[in-house]
Amino acid sequence: MKLNKPTLLLDEQKCLANIRRMKEKADRHNLVFRPHFKTHQSAGVGEWFRDLGVDKITVSSLSMARYFANHGWKDITIAFPLNPAEIEDIDHLASQIRLNVLVENYVGVAILSHNLKNSVGVFIKIDAGYHRTGIDVGNHQSILKLIRQIEKCPQLKFQGFIVHNGHTYNASGTEEILAIHDRSLQQLSALKQFMLQNGVEAIYSIGDTPAMSQTENFEGIDEIRPGNFVFFDVMQQFLGSCNYSNIAVAFACPVVAKHQSRHEIVFYGGAVHLSKDFILDSNGNKVFGKVVELSKSGWESPLGDTYVKSLSQEHGIVKASQAFYNKIEIGDFIGILPVHSCLTVDAMGEMFLIDGTKLRTIHS
Amino acid sequence: MKLNKPTLLLDEQKCLANIRRMKEKADRHNLVFRPHFKTHQSAGVGEWFRDLGVDKITVSSLSMARYFANHGWKDITIAFPLNPAEIEDIDHLASQIRLNVLVENYVGVAILSHNLKNSVGVFIKIDAGYHRTGIDVGNHQSILKLIRQIEKCPQLKFQGFIVHNGHTYNASGTEEILAIHDRSLQQLSALKQFMLQNGVEAIYSIGDTPAMSQTENFEGIDEIRPGNFVFFDVMQQFLGSCNYSNIAVAFACPVVAKHQSRHEIVFYGGAVHLSKDFILDSNGNKVFGKVVELSKSGWESPLGDTYVKSLSQEHGIVKASQAFYNKIEIGDFIGILPVHSCLTVDAMGEMFLIDGTKLRTIHS
Repeated sequence: MKLNKPTLLLDEQKCLANIRRMKEKADRHNLVFRPHFKTHQSAGVGEWFRDLGVDKITVSSLSMARYFANHGWKDITIAFPLNPAEIEDIDHLASQIRLNVLVENYVGVAILSHNLKNSVGVFIKIDAGYHRTGIDVGNHQSILKLIRQIEKCPQLKFQGFIVHNGHTYNASGTEEILAIHDRSLQQLSALKQFMLQNGVEAIYSIGDTPAMSQTENFEGIDEIRPGNFVFFDVMQQFLGSCNYSNIAVAFACPVVAKHQSRHEIVFYGGAVHLSKDFILDSNGNKVFGKVVELSKSGWESPLGDTYVKSLSQEHGIVKASQAFYNKIEIGDFIGILPVHSCLTVDAMGEMFLIDGTKLRTIHS
Repeated sequence: MKLNKPTLLLDEQKCLANIRRMKEKADRHNLVFRPHFKTHQSAGVGEWFRDLGVDKITVSSLSMARYFANHGWKDITIAFPLNPAEIEDIDHLASQIRLNVLVENYVGVAILSHNLKNSVGVFIKIDAGYHRTGIDVGNHQSILKLIRQIEKCPQLKFQGFIVHNGHTYNASGTEEILAIHDRSLQQLSALKQFMLQNGVEAIYSIGDTPAMSQTENFEGIDEIRPGNFVFFDVMQQFLGSCNYSNIAVAFACPVVAKHQSRHEIVFYGGAVHLSKDFILDSNGNKVFGKVVELSKSGWESPLGDTYVKSLSQEHGIVKASQAFYNKIEIGDFIGILPVHSCLTVDAMGEMFLIDGTKLRTIHS
């Protein structure tokens, strides 16, 4: 394809392989696979999941739920605490598809009870250590009370529990990720025992890509909701969830300047495209992206000693090896593997396959 | 206005006052005022500048230049190193308006020379210490050689020098900002002396909001190009460029959960809306935004002991004082003053005045 400005490229084969791998894992463990579509936000990528038999999805906002409902998805969980201001639109969407919402408190349940004409599934958000949202996993009595509240309203169909162990993103690597995951499963197991004693059947749903990619332990779990794995990124490679060769998106950027004295290459592409997430490499450098050479069929492996060292609104600065510095000319396009693909894809809004085909997304 | 999801609000009166203040400063010092429009990216906000007599603007991309050209702006500088891949479109735009481009190397000049049918103004990017892009300000001979190269091509009209001291953003406060600015002016003064000795007349143009807001020293300067001042943000308050009461944008977000044990309030609004820029407060806390109470006429002063402590894709977490925690209910909307308004405005894409009027922007 003819590139003329920063462009997000998607390698369809890598993406399909990522989807297949996770789908097979779910099948192997008898899990419902309800992938999170916030990472790609693309009806086109959604079709690739559908082709493999996926018919349940997760999203993080009502807008996203509506977008995918308009593209034929009939079973959607909005995995975000209920936003009371959107209750009318939630009710409307619930008249069209099988919709699950998320609550973590009485206010949410009361708003649903008083306003819904249509039936919705209700999950309770459980906090198993991330401490962002949810009821503490050990707080069995509170959780049960909330379920009893839900059961009082005929429109509300209690479904189960949703956990997102986002603290795996702050882990040092596989060992710590698996430890977080296993501890979480033990706590959920205790919750399950308590619930069964009280006659409550429930779906136990977990989600984070680091653990979903790296564990084979799904004891007591019914459903998984990973999202990022569809593309992966430098962060996931850093965490041990994937190899660089699994990363399915790269940001193609034109080189606009070179600075010999500091071996820096300036490209057009900045925080408005890539977001400002970074990892710290083993030398303590902030890395805002890894650099790859683009080819007709996609891109090569990342260059070990070359990385994006800073981003401002529309500028990116690559710290380059001598060899790469010499090779690259002003006007060339280089590829950047993003640190956090979810934010990059959202920021860019549009994506293209290597052959230039534009993908349908929520933004374009 | 009726809010139902994260919404970026613009206080027109604060914004107009910010524009007037900077315009008056430019007038007082006999400077051409060529504001950077990348912060607002809004034809509507652009009109407020035009009403005060501004007719020259700065942008950071060809797309933005086209957008504002379509809204009647006839004199535009693209303050970003030339992107060779866009040369045809640059040439086309140059046939419609008075267009200035930026170069910092021979490749850029050669591409312009070989491809342009229409006349463009050319600025040279000068590096006065930020070390992002540009030719070192002390490298007089190299700069002169590049000018001679530009002069050889009849389509290219050498205009002058553009400096952006972005390192003022990393300064500890006013004293350091003014020191960076004054040193930069001394270096530009030496450059000017050299250029005059060689018969080169030029426009000396500087840009950063921290220095433009805080200095009264414009010795030897002809033009200023600040952008962020139109809205300001928490970062600029931190740097001493403005008071909180000057910040003209706030992000209205619905509260979706509260966690008593850690005094945290969860709102719908995350990195995809606010960006991940933060400041470190005096206690070493990362602050991703300051919290304000919304009112009919806009918003109040920020709450001293309440701030946004973290952001994920769509969640924001406020660390709240006891009083604010008790006052706020699930379903309420709270206001967040962004740390970096340029990135927030770009991420949100759309903005609304307090009375609910939607502003025209490049994205909406």
